[in-house]
This record gives sequence, structure tokens and C-alpha cells, in this order.
Amino acid sequence: MTDYQNDAYWMAKALRLAEKGLNTTSPNPRVGCVIVRDGRLVGEGYHERAGTPHAEVHALAKAGDAARGATAYVTLEPCSHHGRTPPCAEALIEAGVGRVVAAIEDPNPQVGGRGLALLEEAGIATRAGVLAEDAETLNRGFLKRMRTGHPWLTLKMASSLDGATALASGESQWITGPEARQDVQLGRARSCAILTGVGTVLTDDPSLNVRLPDVTRQPDRIVLDTRLRTSAEARLFKSNGRVRILHGPQADADSAARLGQVGADLTQLPLESTTGQLDLRALMDWLGEQGYNEIWVEAGAILAGSLLKTGLIDELLLYQAPKLLGANVRPLLDWSIPSLAQAVQLVPVDTRQIGADLRWRLRPVTVSDTA
Amino acid sequence: MTDYQNDAYWMAKALRLAEKGLNTTSPNPRVGCVIVRDGRLVGEGYHERAGTPHAEVHALAKAGDAARGATAYVTLEPCSHHGRTPPCAEALIEAGVGRVVAAIEDPNPQVGGRGLALLEEAGIATRAGVLAEDAETLNRGFLKRMRTGHPWLTLKMASSLDGATALASGESQWITGPEARQDVQLGRARSCAILTGVGTVLTDDPSLNVRLPDVTRQPDRIVLDTRLRTSAEARLFKSNGRVRILHGPQADADSAARLGQVGADLTQLPLESTTGQLDLRALMDWLGEQGYNEIWVEAGAILAGSLLKTGLIDELLLYQAPKLLGANVRPLLDWSIPSLAQAVQLVPVDTRQIGADLRWRLRPVTVSDTA
Repeated sequence: MTDYQNDAYWMAKALRLAEKGLNTTSPNPRVGCVIVRDGRLVGEGYHERAGTPHAEVHALAKAGDAARGATAYVTLEPCSHHGRTPPCAEALIEAGVGRVVAAIEDPNPQVGGRGLALLEEAGIATRAGVLAEDAETLNRGFLKRMRTGHPWLTLKMASSLDGATALASGESQWITGPEARQDVQLGRARSCAILTGVGTVLTDDPSLNVRLPDVTRQPDRIVLDTRLRTSAEARLFKSNGRVRILHGPQADADSAARLGQVGADLTQLPLESTTGQLDLRALMDWLGEQGYNEIWVEAGAILAGSLLKTGLIDELLLYQAPKLLGANVRPLLDWSIPSLAQAVQLVPVDTRQIGADLRWRLRPVTVSDTA
Repeated sequence: MTDYQNDAYWMAKALRLAEKGLNTTSPNPRVGCVIVRDGRLVGEGYHERAGTPHAEVHALAKAGDAARGATAYVTLEPCSHHGRTPPCAEALIEAGVGRVVAAIEDPNPQVGGRGLALLEEAGIATRAGVLAEDAETLNRGFLKRMRTGHPWLTLKMASSLDGATALASGESQWITGPEARQDVQLGRARSCAILTGVGTVLTDDPSLNVRLPDVTRQPDRIVLDTRLRTSAEARLFKSNGRVRILHGPQADADSAARLGQVGADLTQLPLESTTGQLDLRALMDWLGEQGYNEIWVEAGAILAGSLLKTGLIDELLLYQAPKLLGANVRPLLDWSIPSLAQAVQLVPVDTRQIGADLRWRLRPVTVSDTA
């Protein structure tokens, strides 16, 4: 087999390396790199955390002189700009690699094909588009933010088979099983931030943090709280990680001071004129400006419904417990449509059994979110 | 390989033959038979319809003299009693087969091991229990009726992802897609009877018949209609197949006469003292006495809920369309529970994508149905 035919094999290895940074690279993308010479892996690396060296630098360091004439496989086009670290394209040129294969081009406006162009100009053969789909999926949040200025929103919901999230009495604990709840922890851990509404904070008083043994980065917790009703006693403030509260123009100064004292970071957003709620489009702009790639939404029926109807949700993860609760329950989504044609239509991406529960991964048919 | 090691191979063939009778053998079981001599198939057959020859008779006829010393594989223990056809155990003995392998014993009290015993007494080697689980599944209705006197009840339901069957306005057409509706046709076709409530007849006016190109047997349609409110104009009466109406003691004689004129077959059932509805236990006894093996239930939120809560449903087939309808909808089940501990718990058997929809096959955790 020629090198060319082996490109997918080596890129798969680079992608597995990139995944090691799944929970830690925010706001940077996850990137992996392997360096191969004469069919042998001579160097490998991945980006672990913002401010530390890029994947290519780690891999080149390991390869040393063996990098000369070798092929470098990178899951994202090598950067060409001077950021917190020097450009990787230059490092690859200096190391004397003979060929560079990238899974996808970097849509970062500071890169945008210039990394590969730099290499070509230095006489290095390049190829892009190997396992591109996998590379897209791995960094869907980063890539969406680079392309649109908005983060990727995953909405997590859990219900019984008949769509109940709780009894009317409010009893809702343990609708899904421990395996599903563990899976939610993994979803939170990979996200840059977790978004919720003040209703959920007041009703359930969740910590919304990551409770996994090896967690080194807690996602920010972001609460939409128009009138600053969040209590300074909320569990949110009793666990590690930043809490950011987005409020409207009329927020009470005393509440703001109290929340500031327990460490909350407060930001004002405009209101939507029709609903009097925080403007969701302004929210998306703000989330993008803050460098959030992936947002994990755990919210109640009203906020979840608004985000879905506004077309801002990229993916819905629905955990369904094989239980039937009947009528007199709290519904999954709090909205009312005049005809079936107005139903939110979704396309299932995959369904997976998780413990006794089923997890649906679905995409809304039309996502209207463009910056 | 010895014959013994090949038993599963040949039994699998016999099971595939038996499946050819899936839609037609009611009230008899589906049975297939292959006759194998010196590793070669010399005869095969399956039971097609009550009153016609059993699988063994067809297979022996095809085998002719080659049956002598051969092994006969039967998916159900050969019968030993004189029914509408002579006992197959005797036919196998007369044909001089050397060995008989049965997937399962026949729990029919008229057989119950006597078929195999007859063969053994005639000096023929026998074996039972080859691919027993598959054979059980194929005839789960017949076997349950033989063991308990009650049929197997499959409850079919369809809803959006958030558990809605219709908008509050009643608009419900096409919640699921054409593939799911075609799958429902297959479920109806294999059933001995289709059970519904008068509420569904009055609201939706369904035909509840099988609309498949090659249908040769229409399942009976059975309506639970305490006060004989079914209209003589209902679509039920405008399609092929028998309509049976079960009513309570106070039913109106004029209504009964009108329904009789359009071909309905009326039967009175006792009422449950607590609910004033038809006694579901009496219903199960009656269904069993009528020789129904598999009942396909398509009913509304009240009857479906009663059957589930009473523990009479053996299997729930839930078709979920990837749509969200929000609040202000008709729920899947019309009951109210005081705490989550009273939720109906189910175990998923399998989930399958059908067109754009997902089909869940679930079993209630405790089925209290014993005769």
C-alpha cells in the first residue's frame, strides 16, 4: 500500500489522540497529530489545554530528527497565525516534514486555508479531507462558532415514554436510571458551558457541575435570569466552577450585589420586545463572543421550548425511561401549536440503549440559526 | 457433523416454513416440518389453515418412501389426538421415520407430551427443545392460550416524542409516517382479532382491517361497547371481515337489532362493579374461549390505560414519531398516579427505526394475567 492509501488509517489514529482533549481544550478545538515515516509512527501528540502547545508541536518534539521527510497527519489544518503559541505550519516546515495531511481546513478566519498554503509554498505536499466527517463531528462546536459566531447547542431532556418529566406534584427524581445520569455527566464534561433557566434553579436547585473522578475543568454554568431571582444560597455556588448570570435591564441592584458576593459574574442582555424575555439571538451572539464552542442546555419546559421553536438547538439528546406516567404530569415542552404542521420536526441521528433507558440523538429539521 | 449437531440447522428451516402460515393458521399454531435423510432434505411442509392438513402430513407426502428411516423436524410436538385431521404422531410412525425432533412440546392439554410418548413407544428416537425460544416466540399466542386460557395481547400505540397522540383539537392524522403505518398492517395481519373501544370507533371511525395485497384472512374486529353506541354506519361494517361487539347487560334492543342487521355479532359481558365498564377479566376468558391466540389492541387512552394498569397487556408496540407537539395535546394514556412508584414499568425488548419513526417493543415488568 502506498502512503496515500494509508492516510485514513493514520488519520484515525490522530483523531483518537485528538479525543483525549475532549473535555479540556475549550475554547480551542481538539486536535491530534501523528508523524509517520516509512510506514512507522515516529511521533504523536494532542492539544490538551488552551495556552499549552498544539498537537503538532508535541508530535514534532517526540519525532525529533525522524520528522525529516516524514508525513504529518493533523486532524485540523495547522495554524498559520501567531496566537498564544507560534504557528504550527512554520514548525512543520522547520522540522523538514515531507508531506502534511489534514482532515479538514480550519474555518478560523485567522487560518482559513493559509496554513496549508504556507506549507505548499515551502514545497511540502499537502492533502485535506481525510476522515473529514469525523473531524467535523469532533469539533462541531468550534467549527460552528468559527463559521457563524454562534456556539453549538445540545439540548438534553429526560422523560417517560409518554413524555412526562415529572408528576404534576413535581415528583421527578430518578425518572431515568443511573446509567443515563452518568451519560449526562459525560455530556456536561465535554461542553464549554451549561445553560439553564432561573426556573430550573428555583425548582430543582441543581449543582449542574461535572461529577466524574478525573475532571480537571468544570464548564461554566450560565443562568438566564431576567429579573435576578437566583438565590445566593443556590447549590450552583457551592460547587467548583464559574457561575454566570444573564439578566435584563431592570435587574435589582441589591440582588446583583448579593449574587456578586457569592462569586456570580453578571451580564446584562437586552429583552425581546414581544416576549419580555431575554433576547435569545443576543444570547447566541454573547455566547459566541465569550468563546464558548459547545453549550449543554438543561432547562425546563419553557426555555427548552423557546430554544427549540426559535431554531437555536443543533441537537436534542432525549433520554426516555421505559415508564408510563399517564396524564396529570408535567410536559416535556410548554408550548401550544394550532395545527400539526407547526410541530417541531426532528431527524433521528442515532438511538442507543443506555441502561434501561433509550437515548435519542435528534436534529431539528430546519435550524434557522445563522449569525 | 452428526445428525444431532445438525438439528438446529434443520429446525431453523422448519421454523422458516412455519412462518409462512403466520397470517393464516388461526386459531391453530404455525407449524413447519422438514424431513431429512442422509443429510438431504427429502420433504417439507407447513400448516396453512385450520381444517387443512398439518405440516407433517404435507412433508411426509412429499418425502414418500424416502421418509423411511429419515429424521423429521417439527416446530411443535406432533399431535396425538384425533381433531379435524388424524394424529400426526401416527402418520410419522406409519411412514417409518427413524427419529423425530421437536422444537417444543405442545402445551395443548390434548397433546402435552403424548405425541412424543407415542413415537417413543413405537421405537422412534425423539428429541425436544431445539430452537425452543424461536418456536415459543412464533406461537406465543397459541402457547399462552393453551397454558392460561387467555390470548396474548399486543397493544399498539403511536405518539410524538413527547407523548402526544393528537392535538387537543383532535387533529391526529399522520403523526407517524407511511412505513410505520405499513408495519401496523403486518401486526394486524398476523393477529386473530383486533380489539378496540367504542370511543375510538366514534372518534376516528376506523376500518381496522388488513389492507395488504395478499391478504386471505381478515382478523375479526372486536369492539368493547358497553351501551351499544356503535353506529350501524361505521366503516367497520363497510369492509370485509367479522365485527363482534361486546356489550353490557343494559344494552338497548333497538341498537342491537340495527347492528345485527349490518352483520355485527353481539355478545353480552358482565360489568366490573367498581368501574361500571365491561369486566376485563371476563373479556380475557371470552377471548380465550373463542380460540383467539393473538389480539392486536388499537384503542384510545382510556381502554389502553385500563388494559395496561390491569396487567393484561403482554407487549406494547409504541411507534414514536420524531416530532414535538408541546402541551395542549391528547395524552397517550388517560390515568393519574399519585407517585412515581405507581408508574407502569416496562422492559424494552427491541427498538427499531421504521422510516422516520422508532418502534419500541416493550414488556410490562409484571404481567398479572393468569387464568
